[in-house]
Amino acid sequence: MTTRKTLRASGHLIDDGLLHKIFDVVTGTGATYEVIESRIGRTKDQTSTAVIQVDAPEESTLADIMQDLVKLGVEPVETASVVLEPAPADGVAPDGFYSTTNHPTEVRIEGTWTLVDQQRMDALIVVDGDRASCVKLRNVEKGQAVVVGAEGVRVTPPAKDLEDGDFGFMNSEVSSERHVALVVDSLAKQIAQIKKEGKKKVILVAGPVVVHTGGVAPMERLLAAGAIDGILAGNALAVHDIERALLNTSLGIDTNTGQGVAGGHCHHMRAINEIRKHGDIPKAIEAGSLTHGIMYHCVKHGVPYVLAGSLRDDGPLPEAITDMNEAQEAYAAMIEDAGIVLILSTMLHGIATGNMLPSTVTTVCIDINPAVVTKLCDRGSAQTIGVVTDVGLFLHMLADRINA
Amino acid sequence: MTTRKTLRASGHLIDDGLLHKIFDVVTGTGATYEVIESRIGRTKDQTSTAVIQVDAPEESTLADIMQDLVKLGVEPVETASVVLEPAPADGVAPDGFYSTTNHPTEVRIEGTWTLVDQQRMDALIVVDGDRASCVKLRNVEKGQAVVVGAEGVRVTPPAKDLEDGDFGFMNSEVSSERHVALVVDSLAKQIAQIKKEGKKKVILVAGPVVVHTGGVAPMERLLAAGAIDGILAGNALAVHDIERALLNTSLGIDTNTGQGVAGGHCHHMRAINEIRKHGDIPKAIEAGSLTHGIMYHCVKHGVPYVLAGSLRDDGPLPEAITDMNEAQEAYAAMIEDAGIVLILSTMLHGIATGNMLPSTVTTVCIDINPAVVTKLCDRGSAQTIGVVTDVGLFLHMLADRINA
Amino acid sequence: MTTRKTLRASGHLIDDGLLHKIFDVVTGTGATYEVIESRIGRTKDQTSTAVIQVDAPEESTLADIMQDLVKLGVEPVETASVVLEPAPADGVAPDGFYSTTNHPTEVRIEGTWTLVDQQRMDALIVVDGDRASCVKLRNVEKGQAVVVGAEGVRVTPPAKDLEDGDFGFMNSEVSSERHVALVVDSLAKQIAQIKKEGKKKVILVAGPVVVHTGGVAPMERLLAAGAIDGILAGNALAVHDIERALLNTSLGIDTNTGQGVAGGHCHHMRAINEIRKHGDIPKAIEAGSLTHGIMYHCVKHGVPYVLAGSLRDDGPLPEAITDMNEAQEAYAAMIEDAGIVLILSTMLHGIATGNMLPSTVTTVCIDINPAVVTKLCDRGSAQTIGVVTDVGLFLHMLADRINA
Amino acid sequence: MTTRKTLRASGHLIDDGLLHKIFDVVTGTGATYEVIESRIGRTKDQTSTAVIQVDAPEESTLADIMQDLVKLGVEPVETASVVLEPAPADGVAPDGFYSTTNHPTEVRIEGTWTLVDQQRMDALIVVDGDRASCVKLRNVEKGQAVVVGAEGVRVTPPAKDLEDGDFGFMNSEVSSERHVALVVDSLAKQIAQIKKEGKKKVILVAGPVVVHTGGVAPMERLLAAGAIDGILAGNALAVHDIERALLNTSLGIDTNTGQGVAGGHCHHMRAINEIRKHGDIPKAIEAGSLTHGIMYHCVKHGVPYVLAGSLRDDGPLPEAITDMNEAQEAYAAMIEDAGIVLILSTMLHGIATGNMLPSTVTTVCIDINPAVVTKLCDRGSAQTIGVVTDVGLFLHMLADRINA
Repeated sequence: MTTRKTLRASGHLIDDGLLHKIFDVVTGTGATYEVIESRIGRTKDQTSTAVIQVDAPEESTLADIMQDLVKLGVEPVETASVVLEPAPADGVAPDGFYSTTNHPTEVRIEGTWTLVDQQRMDALIVVDGDRASCVKLRNVEKGQAVVVGAEGVRVTPPAKDLEDGDFGFMNSEVSSERHVALVVDSLAKQIAQIKKEGKKKVILVAGPVVVHTGGVAPMERLLAAGAIDGILAGNALAVHDIERALLNTSLGIDTNTGQGVAGGHCHHMRAINEIRKHGDIPKAIEAGSLTHGIMYHCVKHGVPYVLAGSLRDDGPLPEAITDMNEAQEAYAAMIEDAGIVLILSTMLHGIATGNMLPSTVTTVCIDINPAVVTKLCDRGSAQTIGVVTDVGLFLHMLADRINA
Repeated sequence: MTTRKTLRASGHLIDDGLLHKIFDVVTGTGATYEVIESRIGRTKDQTSTAVIQVDAPEESTLADIMQDLVKLGVEPVETASVVLEPAPADGVAPDGFYSTTNHPTEVRIEGTWTLVDQQRMDALIVVDGDRASCVKLRNVEKGQAVVVGAEGVRVTPPAKDLEDGDFGFMNSEVSSERHVALVVDSLAKQIAQIKKEGKKKVILVAGPVVVHTGGVAPMERLLAAGAIDGILAGNALAVHDIERALLNTSLGIDTNTGQGVAGGHCHHMRAINEIRKHGDIPKAIEAGSLTHGIMYHCVKHGVPYVLAGSLRDDGPLPEAITDMNEAQEAYAAMIEDAGIVLILSTMLHGIATGNMLPSTVTTVCIDINPAVVTKLCDRGSAQTIGVVTDVGLFLHMLADRINA
Repeated sequence: MTTRKTLRASGHLIDDGLLHKIFDVVTGTGATYEVIESRIGRTKDQTSTAVIQVDAPEESTLADIMQDLVKLGVEPVETASVVLEPAPADGVAPDGFYSTTNHPTEVRIEGTWTLVDQQRMDALIVVDGDRASCVKLRNVEKGQAVVVGAEGVRVTPPAKDLEDGDFGFMNSEVSSERHVALVVDSLAKQIAQIKKEGKKKVILVAGPVVVHTGGVAPMERLLAAGAIDGILAGNALAVHDIERALLNTSLGIDTNTGQGVAGGHCHHMRAINEIRKHGDIPKAIEAGSLTHGIMYHCVKHGVPYVLAGSLRDDGPLPEAITDMNEAQEAYAAMIEDAGIVLILSTMLHGIATGNMLPSTVTTVCIDINPAVVTKLCDRGSAQTIGVVTDVGLFLHMLADRINA
Repeated sequence: MTTRKTLRASGHLIDDGLLHKIFDVVTGTGATYEVIESRIGRTKDQTSTAVIQVDAPEESTLADIMQDLVKLGVEPVETASVVLEPAPADGVAPDGFYSTTNHPTEVRIEGTWTLVDQQRMDALIVVDGDRASCVKLRNVEKGQAVVVGAEGVRVTPPAKDLEDGDFGFMNSEVSSERHVALVVDSLAKQIAQIKKEGKKKVILVAGPVVVHTGGVAPMERLLAAGAIDGILAGNALAVHDIERALLNTSLGIDTNTGQGVAGGHCHHMRAINEIRKHGDIPKAIEAGSLTHGIMYHCVKHGVPYVLAGSLRDDGPLPEAITDMNEAQEAYAAMIEDAGIVLILSTMLHGIATGNMLPSTVTTVCIDINPAVVTKLCDRGSAQTIGVVTDVGLFLHMLADRINA
């Protein structure tokens, strides 16, 4: 006694591999499909459509299948409204809740398709009157109307083909055997374009390796040039940047000679103490204690930053947000209106940011470790570009191109 | 106009490379040394001693040198008491504060050497009457007496040579080209020994890769056998373990077939919601919802665990500690009396734990990524052993040996 | 003034992503396509077909496009015979020669489709009367008829979907976060199946890391069990295996204790000298000098091996083939009738073997370095499976399963 | 019934860790030592000396110990002449032959210390009258007098401390978290110095990744500037460089756009065929076929190159040496009088070259994979410097510095 549903898929079904994925989802569950109707776009610009009838052994299998197919842009032929159930308690969702992707999503409320606000991954959709928004599990309130199942949900996955002049050439597998200068050129052009349009932000997510590999000088130039609109980091980036500004070392290694210095192992603790003494970074700058570096240029040029704490932190600095829920909110606020996000040598902050980003934001991950780049790209969607290279040299070249 | 200080070094100056490091520290600053007297141990068991006169160009250079030399076990010939200065504010240390290592440390208070309590890395030493203890920078209180400079501080770095039958053979560079079965044998013996003596704890620090690589079954066996006294982890280990127990997948991949399942991308969110619904993990077990897995066996066998939050968490689970300062305290409490600490596939929690561990605790890092193992070993001291291998297969073999 | 060609594609156009790749090839050159006709398979088992009209700006662009499309199984609607040109000199091909894939290939000779012999990658096709075979560039003889362009060439890329019970679950991206025990089970079953059928060979390509990681004992068991029909390796595997058999070390590290031994750095040279003294490995065995290990069991159980030389070899052993052209021939002879090829921790010999293998042979690459696995998989085709794990532990588990 | 030998060690016993290694060798065998006399250098410039009495359980243990101690610069107090035995056959050494290091070595022949010629690793020492030279095992001739045991052998390991202004700062562990610009500066200075002195050669060992990562343009500049005296490579570097010069792709990827091109998979075969058609690279240049790239600039500027074949080669090019014994001889000839050797992204050719290099030649290994750098450094000695970075960006920066 099987359950049947008839679905319509449309878009770049072939170019984006969507049809392939749809078939995979269905057959992976033991269900079967039949293509009732299909039309492949005659030219590159035309989209394709297919009507597919799915027969599943059980209702629950069909529900699982629909959860996945909806995310590929598939819709039932007979549209219905979303099914809503009240949250049974604060921070608890009803069973069978719909869990979001990072793609633009609409829900059908009383016959009308409504765009969901605050789009992000792994959230619930809460409907309030004719409005719908993504809400994190821990933030849902008892009694709020939560979307359950995939009925009445419509997702628009982004088309994979980017415009000419963009990063089209990087959309293949992660590799250290690439000509990175080409990436730098494209990136510099995109950043210039975003700054020229003036509507979106360029956000940088950076780990302390930026400091260790000699990236402070080019970062100062990028900040001074107004190329960056916000920095997301942890305690360590700021600590080592300040260590370098105050004591000319990072992790105890002399910036100019590359050699360890006596007493250098304590330098990061001395840097933290110096800032704590003044109260925070801006006050240390005001007092004339901190006179250069990434954090200094952020404050000087009015570029906001968020420092998220972590379990491995020393100190931390006064502005490090130690509560992870608060830190996530602060990160989320920063990436609103982001046009491009650069992730430099930090898996932790990079994945955290990726979880919050809608798939319409171009994301570029730069790391010397291919495993990190692969992991960041796997979690993202079509818009994520991975570059395996030396972060310090990369920043030098990027600052040269931006300033040229 | 140079400053001079005469120092005595003793111990396994040659075998542990201490004398070499002492000379390096001195000459690296532009200071010079003269060996006034030296006696090399005639046999393996005898220690060596040297009296060294250091001439530094400036007082501050000498202070920097002393910060480093003290940590190598060097003492001035003329002993003095520690210099104390009051903390100028809560969470702020006096300039020039002594920053600790993870080695056993004594301070000289009114002519008496006193062992410092709560030994850990990168802390201050606070003296209260005749007692001295390590205090984290953020916890120091205004007016507390903080050790400044290296005067009157004595450190005992651990001898590198471990007893026969131990991990002596692994104390060379990190490599994936090793016979891991030998490591498993040694580790199983050490764990058995610790359990037999019954004085110290076996603590496991574990990342979610343990679940993905098939480590749940051997972990269940190790927990059931009483081989583990505590687990330090993040939200993700518990989430994927519970996802696997409830839905038979980890990160949406079927545990038995290795294939993705429909709707699997939401499974970790469903697992989190299930636990939140019951209140916490023990209540979910009590209610019969959670019936196997790592977390289940922890609760069943009374093995305590700490789940530290992180910026990239979904949920999190109710027991995840979201404030990093609190999480650090909970971790620190768990590792008290640890005899051996195993770090399995987690750089974040591994480094965090390493920062808290005194150097007298044997630490074994297991990861398939050599860069992670190298990083964990570099931050530790003589007692840290790195193994590059597949964590799932490693746990299988370890459980076999322990249960045999 | 464009050139037009009408083509037919058929097969699992959607499931294997072929149609997507066809569109990519065409639009990547500046050419355009129009889908004249298309029929998507209604169910999983039905194939799809499409008739596509390609308009290219120039004849040479169309030729380039055809070189690629033919390899995806595409055929012109109007079939023609292959175009042949004589090789201008020994070891030189005519311009525009067709360069082969590792997929089954037919050429149309006087109206008849003929299967090409000796299928391998990057070869020429030489036609002699009604026979066609792959010939390496350096082996072509002056005047031989070489296929030029893609006209009259038909390729059958393998369907990606493997049978149930096979490695279907591993056909996703390379990752170290996998449950390797599942792979071992599948592999053991496949090997058992091949041995039972008795038609195809199980070939092992192995690097010296097999010895260093403790893989000799399980290899001995696999050889004794008759599970392996041939070994492809370099000088180093044999040297370190023999070093271990004679002196109980590999690269000077004691096999039982894991510690370096005095004089150990010379052990590999002593092993080489011992074999040279006797003449070769079988003679050393006959003389009672070599009594266990991988090479010993190869000789004892009549399992053939090829040792290819390399630029970094010491010695080499008498049976190492120092000329690379000869070594390639010997490798190619060994893999004839291979049913499964296991590549263990050796990029050099693995890629060399991959270049020779038709895509119908299942290939499994096992290495602890994900970059090596990715590289080996990228160069292969649908049949290549990558496993990131510890080779020594993997072999232990495989030998247990095979012998069970 | 133990055997005793009294030994003298002198040099930078502490700074270079020699004494520590000596003790390790002795105690690792079960033998014991007693330090009869010791004098530690009073200042940095003074050397230290120690007289050590070793008691070994057996004569053969003592012989093993001596094999290792000699290589650390240790000498018996009572000097004896070398022991010589005739080679029993061509390519076979007498049992117990002394196997060389890459450090300067002398042998005592009839009371006179004679410097050994052709110093390299893993060779025999053959004495002919009053001359001694390193001979590879395969080249020894029947009856030649081969040094057996360590008696009468004296080795001078290089002091680890390099001069100021050199790579002192890089002599620590391999890490990707370094400021590479500092390395480039030092390297450019060293190359300039060597070129100015005009006595030694700058040799480059390069893999095909140099081409893929955009290193051709900077390589052309370095060759044009006369900064390089010879190139050691394999078939692949030349093939991809020529592919790029002829068809503007490397491995089928367009050099300017970074995108794959139609028919690109055959481009490397077309490049090989083009050169074979002309006979060799210089003839292809003469004929006007090859007009730029690395190989073109080598020929144009008279910079010699050696292309060694390998098992994975396609083609190969006519100048690729397919016999590994011949290729080793050609490599060895090229590195005579080398002052600095740069190894760029090639483990195979890098290790092969390292095996031949005396330890007095500065060697710099550059690779984006830390495992490769570690492996190359481990096999070398004090003079080997490892840099983990992006090779293309590194070459750009180096060419800028050299040409500035």
